[in-house]
Amino acid sequence: MVGNTFGHIFRVTTWGESHGKAVGCVVDGCPAGLDISSEVIQRELDRRKPGGRLATKRKEEDKVEILSGVFEGKTLGTPISMLIWNKDVDSRPYEEIKDLLRPGHADYTYLAKFGIRDWRGGGRASARETAARVAAGAIAKHLLARFGVKVGGYAKEIAGVSCNVDGMSFEEIVEKAEKSDVRCPDSEAAKLMEERIIEARREGDSVGGVVEVIVKNPPAGLGEPVFMKLDAYIAYAVMGIPAVKGVEIGAGFEAARMKGSEHNDPIVIKNGRIGFATNNAGGILGGVSNGDDIIVRAAIKPTPSISKPQRTVNFRTMKEEEIVVKGRHDPCIVPRAVPVVEAMVSLAIADAMMLQGLIPRCLQG
Amino acid sequence: MVGNTFGHIFRVTTWGESHGKAVGCVVDGCPAGLDISSEVIQRELDRRKPGGRLATKRKEEDKVEILSGVFEGKTLGTPISMLIWNKDVDSRPYEEIKDLLRPGHADYTYLAKFGIRDWRGGGRASARETAARVAAGAIAKHLLARFGVKVGGYAKEIAGVSCNVDGMSFEEIVEKAEKSDVRCPDSEAAKLMEERIIEARREGDSVGGVVEVIVKNPPAGLGEPVFMKLDAYIAYAVMGIPAVKGVEIGAGFEAARMKGSEHNDPIVIKNGRIGFATNNAGGILGGVSNGDDIIVRAAIKPTPSISKPQRTVNFRTMKEEEIVVKGRHDPCIVPRAVPVVEAMVSLAIADAMMLQGLIPRCLQG
Amino acid sequence: MVGNTFGHIFRVTTWGESHGKAVGCVVDGCPAGLDISSEVIQRELDRRKPGGRLATKRKEEDKVEILSGVFEGKTLGTPISMLIWNKDVDSRPYEEIKDLLRPGHADYTYLAKFGIRDWRGGGRASARETAARVAAGAIAKHLLARFGVKVGGYAKEIAGVSCNVDGMSFEEIVEKAEKSDVRCPDSEAAKLMEERIIEARREGDSVGGVVEVIVKNPPAGLGEPVFMKLDAYIAYAVMGIPAVKGVEIGAGFEAARMKGSEHNDPIVIKNGRIGFATNNAGGILGGVSNGDDIIVRAAIKPTPSISKPQRTVNFRTMKEEEIVVKGRHDPCIVPRAVPVVEAMVSLAIADAMMLQGLIPRCLQG
Amino acid sequence: MVGNTFGHIFRVTTWGESHGKAVGCVVDGCPAGLDISSEVIQRELDRRKPGGRLATKRKEEDKVEILSGVFEGKTLGTPISMLIWNKDVDSRPYEEIKDLLRPGHADYTYLAKFGIRDWRGGGRASARETAARVAAGAIAKHLLARFGVKVGGYAKEIAGVSCNVDGMSFEEIVEKAEKSDVRCPDSEAAKLMEERIIEARREGDSVGGVVEVIVKNPPAGLGEPVFMKLDAYIAYAVMGIPAVKGVEIGAGFEAARMKGSEHNDPIVIKNGRIGFATNNAGGILGGVSNGDDIIVRAAIKPTPSISKPQRTVNFRTMKEEEIVVKGRHDPCIVPRAVPVVEAMVSLAIADAMMLQGLIPRCLQG
Repeated sequence: MVGNTFGHIFRVTTWGESHGKAVGCVVDGCPAGLDISSEVIQRELDRRKPGGRLATKRKEEDKVEILSGVFEGKTLGTPISMLIWNKDVDSRPYEEIKDLLRPGHADYTYLAKFGIRDWRGGGRASARETAARVAAGAIAKHLLARFGVKVGGYAKEIAGVSCNVDGMSFEEIVEKAEKSDVRCPDSEAAKLMEERIIEARREGDSVGGVVEVIVKNPPAGLGEPVFMKLDAYIAYAVMGIPAVKGVEIGAGFEAARMKGSEHNDPIVIKNGRIGFATNNAGGILGGVSNGDDIIVRAAIKPTPSISKPQRTVNFRTMKEEEIVVKGRHDPCIVPRAVPVVEAMVSLAIADAMMLQGLIPRCLQG
Repeated sequence: MVGNTFGHIFRVTTWGESHGKAVGCVVDGCPAGLDISSEVIQRELDRRKPGGRLATKRKEEDKVEILSGVFEGKTLGTPISMLIWNKDVDSRPYEEIKDLLRPGHADYTYLAKFGIRDWRGGGRASARETAARVAAGAIAKHLLARFGVKVGGYAKEIAGVSCNVDGMSFEEIVEKAEKSDVRCPDSEAAKLMEERIIEARREGDSVGGVVEVIVKNPPAGLGEPVFMKLDAYIAYAVMGIPAVKGVEIGAGFEAARMKGSEHNDPIVIKNGRIGFATNNAGGILGGVSNGDDIIVRAAIKPTPSISKPQRTVNFRTMKEEEIVVKGRHDPCIVPRAVPVVEAMVSLAIADAMMLQGLIPRCLQG
Repeated sequence: MVGNTFGHIFRVTTWGESHGKAVGCVVDGCPAGLDISSEVIQRELDRRKPGGRLATKRKEEDKVEILSGVFEGKTLGTPISMLIWNKDVDSRPYEEIKDLLRPGHADYTYLAKFGIRDWRGGGRASARETAARVAAGAIAKHLLARFGVKVGGYAKEIAGVSCNVDGMSFEEIVEKAEKSDVRCPDSEAAKLMEERIIEARREGDSVGGVVEVIVKNPPAGLGEPVFMKLDAYIAYAVMGIPAVKGVEIGAGFEAARMKGSEHNDPIVIKNGRIGFATNNAGGILGGVSNGDDIIVRAAIKPTPSISKPQRTVNFRTMKEEEIVVKGRHDPCIVPRAVPVVEAMVSLAIADAMMLQGLIPRCLQG
Repeated sequence: MVGNTFGHIFRVTTWGESHGKAVGCVVDGCPAGLDISSEVIQRELDRRKPGGRLATKRKEEDKVEILSGVFEGKTLGTPISMLIWNKDVDSRPYEEIKDLLRPGHADYTYLAKFGIRDWRGGGRASARETAARVAAGAIAKHLLARFGVKVGGYAKEIAGVSCNVDGMSFEEIVEKAEKSDVRCPDSEAAKLMEERIIEARREGDSVGGVVEVIVKNPPAGLGEPVFMKLDAYIAYAVMGIPAVKGVEIGAGFEAARMKGSEHNDPIVIKNGRIGFATNNAGGILGGVSNGDDIIVRAAIKPTPSISKPQRTVNFRTMKEEEIVVKGRHDPCIVPRAVPVVEAMVSLAIADAMMLQGLIPRCLQG
């Protein structure tokens, strides 16, 4: 569970630099006998793909190739290797500024850690790396669906504009979000968000927001206390996504301002089974899922690449300079972050279900 | 890194139920040759200990015994086993309600996961478990201090009252916090916080808050991208603490409302070295520490044990009932949570430093 | 799975030095709802206990205390902490030679690794550490028995004397071995073995041997290829026991001298199911159990502590000296190693079964 | 450290089926700044490559492509993804027997574990998988060489013929072995070995043998007691290689027949430093390297694919049948196993050195 591998039983290892030959991943521990095709994976990759009028101009097909682990349309229980070639690579804008440390980026910290960095397109620290996460997450999501568990997300907030989903079902939220350029199911809010994104781009600036992901119909009993609690594991999964600065579950930071009598979810009988009258817990109590929807929110910082001039340092000359980051960037990464957060949550839930023995190692017919 | 073990090289495994014989932990991977005494550990345990006019009436000495791994005042590099006997145990109030699922607690989820639970004092899901974390964290903190890294925390917010630390140094914050009953360095805010806690107790209710922990003087280069980023690892460490519902780094959720030009920390030359003009990043960029202070905040929910009547279910009769939780509880857990968050952050940082090779396996004289 | 922790889902962490306060372990991941009592554990500890006319004179009661994880006679699914106090400790013979590196021991290598060592009774490198393994293994063995899997062992060879078990059933082997002072089910061989041990002791020397452990009735499908194959995992488990210098499965090293047509086990129908006419594979093919008995053998070196004078070095003066190791030692560790090998094999099999989903996390009534 | 991943800090994940599109691996945790080229890796792959008059007729170029982790000739500290396309694939001989379980193979056990298998060329259980290990091992070996540690091996025994290396230096052994078709440095033994292999092939049979690998000039202090002892870790690494049935260190099984006074290596002063007069320990004491050569031997079973008729079962009809395995197979896998054992030992040693902090995360100039 270190470095470039995530998971315990259902595990993924990702690799690849933004402007290298390819990015890819190896999914190990997926149960054998799962029907799978590259379409299932491609669908999720297409959701994350650059493009659209609000996004970067880099045009990547992001076509996935499955190299192993699948035989006659079914998983073998052996590692599934997937590869996406990098095609539309233009490293020139990066070459000009390769000695300048881009503010808000990993340029300085990668140098501090590794003493060397691939400056082309951000190298390994580029958000392009998340394509491999989405490919792996697509398998996890597909596996979860087979067990009746659904994972969906949307832009809860962008540039200070909040989205209101009161009264919408999970299906409505997900469906409406997918139809929106900003992945916001509330059409009024979506319009405002778009305006603010366009305005930020015009100013050579960028904006951030909040992604919410919901796990619908999870089983109770997931999570490994006391350290690998389900919420801790989800926090680990989500905070490790580029640009995420905060993670909360259920009422989250708002819980800090509530009284116990307000925050505690009353326990009730629902359809003859134990359930909860409210869901401030976000589906997790004592680090273990309670069977209610799992609600996760991630704070996404504004895209660090902006064309406004910024103060920085040339690490070779050790002199302060001004930098203007060109390249091709999203003024707001939030809409494209939605499938990435979904992917990481799906990976965590699939692994937790396998750890709890709720998904067998070998699926039947 | 699953279940009851935390860490990769510097690792801790904790054990124990609230009303069992004892709680304890095994710290494995601590470098050999570290001067250590039980006083170092006791000091941190005393900070977490129940007591004080705002806290539970359970009176535990929480005296730690070191059973292995230390020889002639130095660590051997072998596992350090520590044990704290449970002494002031009174399980009667729990016996009366052992078939009722306490709202906000792990009663239901532990049953769902394990099919059995130790109902006495919350068993393994009790916050008493964190005593073992603090004991282990004390060793991590002590080790970090030897390498010039300090970890300190305080109550940033309680019951909606915020604390202002503008202009205070790390040392001042820590010192003033320790002198306050609520661990808040801002004496005016502290007074208000106390009032709200006392009021909540009077109402048979409880309040929550926010803990901030600062890592002073960390080395740059910590964190293992892409999954075990330093912020992801800290989020994992902190979200796994009982009652934590959210974790943020640096500007955190506020970052979601900032523009790139506001959020990006300008890179500058400070004392001849590369540094940052501001610290919205909270000391972490691209998942790797940048050498600046690491800033972590945790949202703590209100104590779930309240004496106000609540709706719940008797899981044996499957009937809805009303519950009044007696026992001995803190109306606000935030002040006692401070050393626990510090402990978990210390464990994560010590492990990350060892993974990065910045702390040798064997310390010299 | 590093250092002092073994296992992935069913895990044990051991701690303790030979002449420290105690030795112990924490078993994490044991399914909830398993009936357990300290007698089950004590029985296995008694098999490993020093004593008997061929063994060390150190007299340890080795009485185990369960400190957590068990409630009303059943496991909770939480960590089971077990502790054995060190009582009959006499460090004086070690004090005299504490600057001399005992040949065949870890004295030099622990110094090289840790820069410090607890010289009293070998400290952490003492075989006393295996008491904690046996305690943990006893739980694993007990769990396996519930699923119809039995683990038993015996001294296959001591001081060059081989034991013949042809025609004996698993039950006979185990039963007869337990009645023998050398744990050898072949009474003639046993007599010879004893003579050689007594002779070695008289000469101030020691002898080694081979332990064989059989897993009876294992399920097919255990093992995680390609690296954590079941045989690889067992080899890891067994080679990590003090004094083991070789591990083999089934035909083992003899396989190297066979032809394919001799070594391949013919596949046949047995009782309407797929089976094998012979068992050269030792129950494992391609790293996965085939349902046949798993056969493991471990080469145990002669006890390194001998009273014959040996050449060594005083690491403080860096001068060569002669050493005579006093203390209280077994002239042959093989009989007491049998329960230790069983324990490690049991731990590996229990973990492999949980990984394969064949033992649920929560046992029913 | 489960399934298809090996290692803790220096880690490799392999993937690929014998007759799938490709095989490959991801090496994670390799230090940054290591000079590397595909030639370094190709050289080792060529040593394992099919071909030569004693080997399978499958002709694979085994050309490695590096897809990530290397920039301008140096490692980045990020995952190194390597890929080898499968080219000379002929699945027809496997199609005819796809319902018959090949004796000595994983056919039955993979079905038992996964319920599905890729029958083409043995799928994931094919020794072709080891190409990916050798690619990863080549990087480990190259890294070790930079720190003065060399790893080399040879065929110690084939078909009952032993090789005598008395008086040869490490360099001589390695050099002479590489010049021999059977990788045996003793030319007389080599001739006999070849004869026996050719004879076995003529008979439609196969033979096995023993591989010895030597680690020259390892540092003292490697290994993580008590479970991840260096010998345990090596045993894990080597026993997980297809066809290995036994592993021994130093005197190995022979130690079981020695007396303590014979087996204990006298400790002496050599060139002003502590050393050992003999090396029965095989360079490891108490699970930690002592600085002497590390000696590992692996028992390799005879190739299970033989053209002699064998008894087996058709798992669809559940009837006993006779099987003749065609395909293209080595009558003796031992010579080609040498670089595989070297690879696994190199991976274990590199990881152990990083765990001990003896190889930094970031190499300088």
